[in-house]
Amino acid sequence: MKFEVTILGSSSATPVYNRNPTAQLLNCNEKFYLIDCGEGTQQQLIRFGFKANKIDFIFISHLHGDHYFGLIGLLSSLHLNGRVKPMMIFAPAALAEILTLQFKHSETVIRYPIEFVVIEADKSVQIFENADLTVETIILNHRIPCTGFAFVQKKRLRKLMVEKLEAEQVPLEYYPLLKRGVDLDLPDGKVLLNIDYTTDSERPKKYCYCSDTLFDEGYFETIKGCDTLYHEATFLHEMLDRANQTHHTTALQAAQIAKDTGAAKLLIGHFSSRYKTLQPLLEEARSVFENTELAIEGNTYSI
Amino acid sequence: MKFEVTILGSSSATPVYNRNPTAQLLNCNEKFYLIDCGEGTQQQLIRFGFKANKIDFIFISHLHGDHYFGLIGLLSSLHLNGRVKPMMIFAPAALAEILTLQFKHSETVIRYPIEFVVIEADKSVQIFENADLTVETIILNHRIPCTGFAFVQKKRLRKLMVEKLEAEQVPLEYYPLLKRGVDLDLPDGKVLLNIDYTTDSERPKKYCYCSDTLFDEGYFETIKGCDTLYHEATFLHEMLDRANQTHHTTALQAAQIAKDTGAAKLLIGHFSSRYKTLQPLLEEARSVFENTELAIEGNTYSI
Repeated sequence: MKFEVTILGSSSATPVYNRNPTAQLLNCNEKFYLIDCGEGTQQQLIRFGFKANKIDFIFISHLHGDHYFGLIGLLSSLHLNGRVKPMMIFAPAALAEILTLQFKHSETVIRYPIEFVVIEADKSVQIFENADLTVETIILNHRIPCTGFAFVQKKRLRKLMVEKLEAEQVPLEYYPLLKRGVDLDLPDGKVLLNIDYTTDSERPKKYCYCSDTLFDEGYFETIKGCDTLYHEATFLHEMLDRANQTHHTTALQAAQIAKDTGAAKLLIGHFSSRYKTLQPLLEEARSVFENTELAIEGNTYSI
Repeated sequence: MKFEVTILGSSSATPVYNRNPTAQLLNCNEKFYLIDCGEGTQQQLIRFGFKANKIDFIFISHLHGDHYFGLIGLLSSLHLNGRVKPMMIFAPAALAEILTLQFKHSETVIRYPIEFVVIEADKSVQIFENADLTVETIILNHRIPCTGFAFVQKKRLRKLMVEKLEAEQVPLEYYPLLKRGVDLDLPDGKVLLNIDYTTDSERPKKYCYCSDTLFDEGYFETIKGCDTLYHEATFLHEMLDRANQTHHTTALQAAQIAKDTGAAKLLIGHFSSRYKTLQPLLEEARSVFENTELAIEGNTYSI
């Protein structure tokens, strides 16, 4: 099952050096989840060959503009391009107020249903669940209420050894129970031990998205054991005072967090406009946590 | 004196084929006027090598998103980049309400003064004047209140024939009056006829910006005699019904308007996403008005 994230924007605060404000596209089993939506996200989707209309779920971490100014444009374009299927938006309550005001003054009545789910940034809770995954909020520590998101795949059913089952002419109606791990005592006395006819499915994976935040152990429990941890790394550690003052993280701290929470891989992004080249941020993080990568726009990272 | 316009966005409604929503940058005597500000305008400014902080005046024609969704991002970036000088914004009243709400929820207190001038779309009036030009509204006919803008250069002072004046040792204190076209009777009985010592300055030029609008003779008087007329040409004339229904103009109509109002040059833009190539729109317009050009992003047009 596909579980991967494409970076659409990696810049903090303002667009610069051809880097755009934050946005990421998560693909889980060909369902598309947009995480944050900085200005120009719809242009980035076009640029990298994605159809915006495939997105059914949008998660907005907080109401600093570099994380949501592109949302109204994306929603408007979907409307103009004839979308009819619903869109779920998970965001702070005030975003609904902003969108409503903008639609009102353009006299736009959006043709497709928008289901708006209000996020509270007080305690970590599950906000979404479908057949593929659950989404839990991560309570970050920023200048305004801000949540990250933990996307956790569900355990899949066991895989059938189909050739063996067919060879032994096991009836099809037994397959669903076998997938669920059940041993079967058949009426003819035969016993089908599950272990002989199935293999375990892939281990469910966990992707955590943390932007923007001060280094704060308060959210470590929620992000424990990520397969991929995306963490903001706005500054080099030499700018720690500035990071603390603006409630951001340094590359060194992001790496320390990945290490402390047992992540398998770290992806850093939300780069300050002061860094024209990003190699120093990568090297700093790798000095603490080797398996670090830069969030490069247009790149897709398997989780 | 420089008087030229750079196209930052030429697409109608949605970004497509690497075309961005509407925005233009007018340079008059090295003062910068932004006309409309679709999503991604700040990225386009970076892309084409302009410093956003040079802009001191912003004119928003109406509150359809493809004409203003980039404004909040631009204003925020100027704030984050340390702007202190004032910004004047000419726009419909509701835009102030939208910006205020967005700043409130990001807890942003903009560091530089924003002087917001409300535009009423009921009758054509002068809304701005400085040493270089005046700006008058053009009352367009769109689905929501919408104004274009007529930028008219002021008549410049006469040019001195400095070499001749120096050769005849005419005192410097006479120069300002000569520039103003005055003949001088000197105390020694000598007469300086203005025509012998000055030449006429360049003819003041007029740039009109018309987007979005139905073909409507109501605004022809205001745009009469443009040196360059920018006019939306969303559709080919074969789509006239659609143009009428959405209150837009065809390329043929835009050309007819240029012809009827005595424009010297026509620039067409605001192209529908249905047109991947723009040559058919250009050819249609040129069949009626030869001196037509396409508004191509990144191109600068002398007015």
